[in-house]
Order: sequence, then structure tokens, then C-alpha cells
Amino acid sequence: MDIKTYIGSRKQSVDAFLQSYFSSAFRPKKLYESVTYSLSAGGKRIRPVLCIAAYEACGGSADDVVPYASALELIHTYSLIHDDLPAMDDDDLRRGKPTNHVVFGDGIAILAGDALLTEAFVLLSDARFRAAGISDGQILRAIAEISFAAGAEGMVGGQAQDLLSEDSDPDADTLSFIHAHKTAALIRASIVTGGILAGADADGLDSLREYGKNIGIAFQVVDDILDITGETAVIGKPAGSDEKKKKMTYPKLYGLEQSKRQAEQLVADAVATLGGFDQKADPLREIARYVASRTS
Amino acid sequence: MDIKTYIGSRKQSVDAFLQSYFSSAFRPKKLYESVTYSLSAGGKRIRPVLCIAAYEACGGSADDVVPYASALELIHTYSLIHDDLPAMDDDDLRRGKPTNHVVFGDGIAILAGDALLTEAFVLLSDARFRAAGISDGQILRAIAEISFAAGAEGMVGGQAQDLLSEDSDPDADTLSFIHAHKTAALIRASIVTGGILAGADADGLDSLREYGKNIGIAFQVVDDILDITGETAVIGKPAGSDEKKKKMTYPKLYGLEQSKRQAEQLVADAVATLGGFDQKADPLREIARYVASRTS
Repeated sequence: MDIKTYIGSRKQSVDAFLQSYFSSAFRPKKLYESVTYSLSAGGKRIRPVLCIAAYEACGGSADDVVPYASALELIHTYSLIHDDLPAMDDDDLRRGKPTNHVVFGDGIAILAGDALLTEAFVLLSDARFRAAGISDGQILRAIAEISFAAGAEGMVGGQAQDLLSEDSDPDADTLSFIHAHKTAALIRASIVTGGILAGADADGLDSLREYGKNIGIAFQVVDDILDITGETAVIGKPAGSDEKKKKMTYPKLYGLEQSKRQAEQLVADAVATLGGFDQKADPLREIARYVASRTS
Repeated sequence: MDIKTYIGSRKQSVDAFLQSYFSSAFRPKKLYESVTYSLSAGGKRIRPVLCIAAYEACGGSADDVVPYASALELIHTYSLIHDDLPAMDDDDLRRGKPTNHVVFGDGIAILAGDALLTEAFVLLSDARFRAAGISDGQILRAIAEISFAAGAEGMVGGQAQDLLSEDSDPDADTLSFIHAHKTAALIRASIVTGGILAGADADGLDSLREYGKNIGIAFQVVDDILDITGETAVIGKPAGSDEKKKKMTYPKLYGLEQSKRQAEQLVADAVATLGGFDQKADPLREIARYVASRTS
């Protein structure tokens, strides 16, 4: 199996779902434009793809989980819009395009983020998208998993710590907290959600949680590395922006070489946790390796 | 029954729940302080109280629904923090205290709002707070009701239209859209949620929805009126700020006297929709009258 083909096909399902979901414009039009601008800005859809891959690893059929997987992309996109605001990371460029607030203004950008975050829960709780065999209880557990990972004790907490740590000397505890919460929490929840919705047992969910934690941190370490070694045209944002903003990063604390070794070790650990899964988990294994080798 | 005693007692239950819920600080401390600063800023808790009153009107016992009712206050509080930001309404004073961003900065204020919105869904989906007799399906329908009312087709859409309509000439259609979505949608959802969780039938839910729509709009019309007739010390924000910000309001479009009559009519309509309910709905009836006569 070619992992790029796998990722491309699952990404396409998510893209198609998101496009049809937002096809009927809501009012005011400018809010709709702001929401769809960021949603269609060329994201990799890595969280939905991981959710689908985990669902398939547990025996589910991809199509059944696409709406729920897409909800994760709404949350991720909201977090990017808010993170890019002048009051936060103050980024003008994202995925090679002007950021949301540059195009629509800060007020509408804040509201577009709020709308996307809220819409994720509209989608998750909408009975129209329910596949047979997924129970109310499974959906509720997925909502609990996702909301916890996205909230104050997850992504938002990590972003707040990141914001408050700019200009500070890097320390291992703070950096580990930021990465585990800002990035890894939602990635982990994406994977665990796939398992919950597919009816995985406690052992299966534990393995997926551990896999997700390792992949999530690896993903952020590679992001930190690419900010130094990548080219603006390829990574879609100005290279070296972490350094300019005095962000606390892995390479800053551990150096580039050790950071690369850490990312590889995290990926190896992630793959090792999937020992109890059969070949249906091969996409999860391959995505782990892909995360470490990606260049954008 | 004295309605002030009723409201005071239900408000106290909500306050106690919120205080215990956020008693264990999350990291970073500043995010926790920002969240609890706005939550404990002396809100009237009108949405949770209405949710509880609707639950009781349908035969439920108040204590069982307090956690879910409190989730509505988290959403309301997030919306106030974001609305007050310089990029939105740019308000420095709220409930007589400096607004969140004045104390904590814009970045942390945005994140505190994000955290509160997300935490509402953590709370709603948390099995720890479930009373016996409330099913997974009822909780899911409540989440669907609340998220829809809070999102792009509800509160966020109304706020976006409000933001985009500043400096515009008032027109009845736009004003009606803003009020129905910015304020009335979440108030209506608070009441319907009480009915859903108490197991109300379709007719009961229809009545509660109609009651909620009328009360929600009346609440905003009275807000508009108080902005003109109220005193800064009583309403907790600078009187006349709508006029200064060239907001589209009821008094601006219809005049003060006609706005007062409209509020009274909406309240009368709201009470009339409760004809099918017995005396357990008396608090809902009294709260409707209280909304029209309030001075802050």
C-alpha cells in the first residue's frame, strides 16, 4: 500500500464532505466567506486522516466516520485562525496565503474561529450524519474526548502557555507542556475518537492513545525543525519565524540533530504501540513514518 | 411564590457549581485567572435559571440539571469576553468591572473565551454530572440544540451581523436578525434544553421554543432601552454606549416608547404560549414579567 495514495484518498473524502457541508451560505455572507476561506486554504487534513485510519484499524469502514473526522478539521482550523491574530502569534502568512484576519479583519476572524469551533459540536451531535452501529453513547464519549483535548486542559492551555513563554529562556518542562497540549492533545484525540467510534475495547484505546501522544509530539518537533530547515515556499509560512518571535522550540533547547533523533524515536515508539493490531493498522504505521520524513 | 427568591436560589446553585467546577486550577495560572475573573464577575445567570425553570416546568428536580444549566453560562461568558475585545465592540467596562482583555491582555482574553466555549461541551458530555433518568440521546439532543444556537447560524452569526452593521442606517430586517441571533438564540436554547432533558414531548418543546424566542428578543429590547435610560452605576457599563458606537438598536429604529410597548407585547406573548403547562411553569411566567421590568 502506498501511504500517499491512502492519505490522498481519505483527504479527498474529508474535503468533499467539508465543501458540501458549508455549501449553503449562512448570514452574514462575510462570516461565511471568512470560514470557508480558511477551511479551503489547503490544509493537510492530518487529524481527520488519522481519525479515519484509527477507525479503519479497528475494523470500521472509512465512509462512516468522515463527518466526525471532519469536525476535527473545523477545530484545527479555528485554532489556526485565532493563533495567527495580532494579539497572539501575529502571522500574516499561512499555507502560502494571507491569514484570515489580514483578509477579513480581526473581528470577523475571531468570530470565524468561534463559528468553526462551535460548528464542530453541531456536526458531532447532528443525527443526520450518524452511521448505523454508532451509538449515542459512543458519540458522547467522542465529544468528551475531543472537547477535553481542545480546551483549557488541552490545546487552549498549550497555546496560552506558548503565548506567555515568548521571550523566556527555554526550559524542558515548559516546552514539553506546550508541545503535549498545543499540538499533541488534539492529534491524540483524533486517533482515540476513531477507536471510540469503531467500538475498540479498553486495551485498543490505550494503544491508540499512546500512539497518538507520540505521533502528536513528533509532529510538533518536526514542525519546529522545518521552521529552521524548510523554505518559505514549501512550508507556506516565513521560515525562521519561531526564532524571530523568540518561541520556545525543540531545536532551540536541544539543537537540530538531537531534535531529529527525538522525532525518529517518537515515531518508532508510536509504531511499537500498535503491536496488538493486524494489517488494518498499516496506514497508522505508515503515517507515523511519513510524519517524521515530511518536508512541509 | 416570590420570583426574586426563586431566581436567587437557582442562581446560587449555579454559582456554587461553577465555583467548585473550576476550583482545581489548570495551567497556565493566568488562563485560569482570566476564565474565573469573568465567570465570577457578577452575572445574573439568567440563561441557567431559565434552563432550570424549564426543567422544573416539565416535572424535573432543579438539582439534576444544574451542571447542564451552568454550561450555558460558560457559553454566555465566552461571548461577552470576545464581544468586548477591541477588534469587536471595544468595551472597557462590564458589570462595573474592567473587561477581561483590559486586565489580562487581548491574547489571553481570546483564549479564555475559547476555553469557556470548549469547556461547555466538556461539561455537557461529562458522565460524572449525569442524573439518573437522563439518557445519552437526551444529552446529545441538548448538545445539538445548544451548539446550533451558539454557532454561525445563531449567536456568532448575530454578532457578526452586528459588527458589520455599525455605522449603517437602521433597517427592520437587519435589526430583527441581529436580535434574534445575537441574544435570543442562546436564551431560547437554554429553555428548550431544560425541556429536552426533562423529557418534554414535541408539543411541550414547541411551546418552550416559542416562549424562549419571545423572551429572548424581549430581553435584548430591554437591554437596548436600558442603554439609554439606565445609569452607568446600575447597568454596570457606560450608559449611551450603543449610541456612541452607532449600534443598530430598537429605540433607534422605533423610538423609546414603541420599544417599551414591543417588549411588553413580547412578554405577554411568551406567557400566552405556556397555556398547556400547570403551576410548575409559574417561575417561567414570572421570569417573563421580570425581564420586562428589570432595571439592570
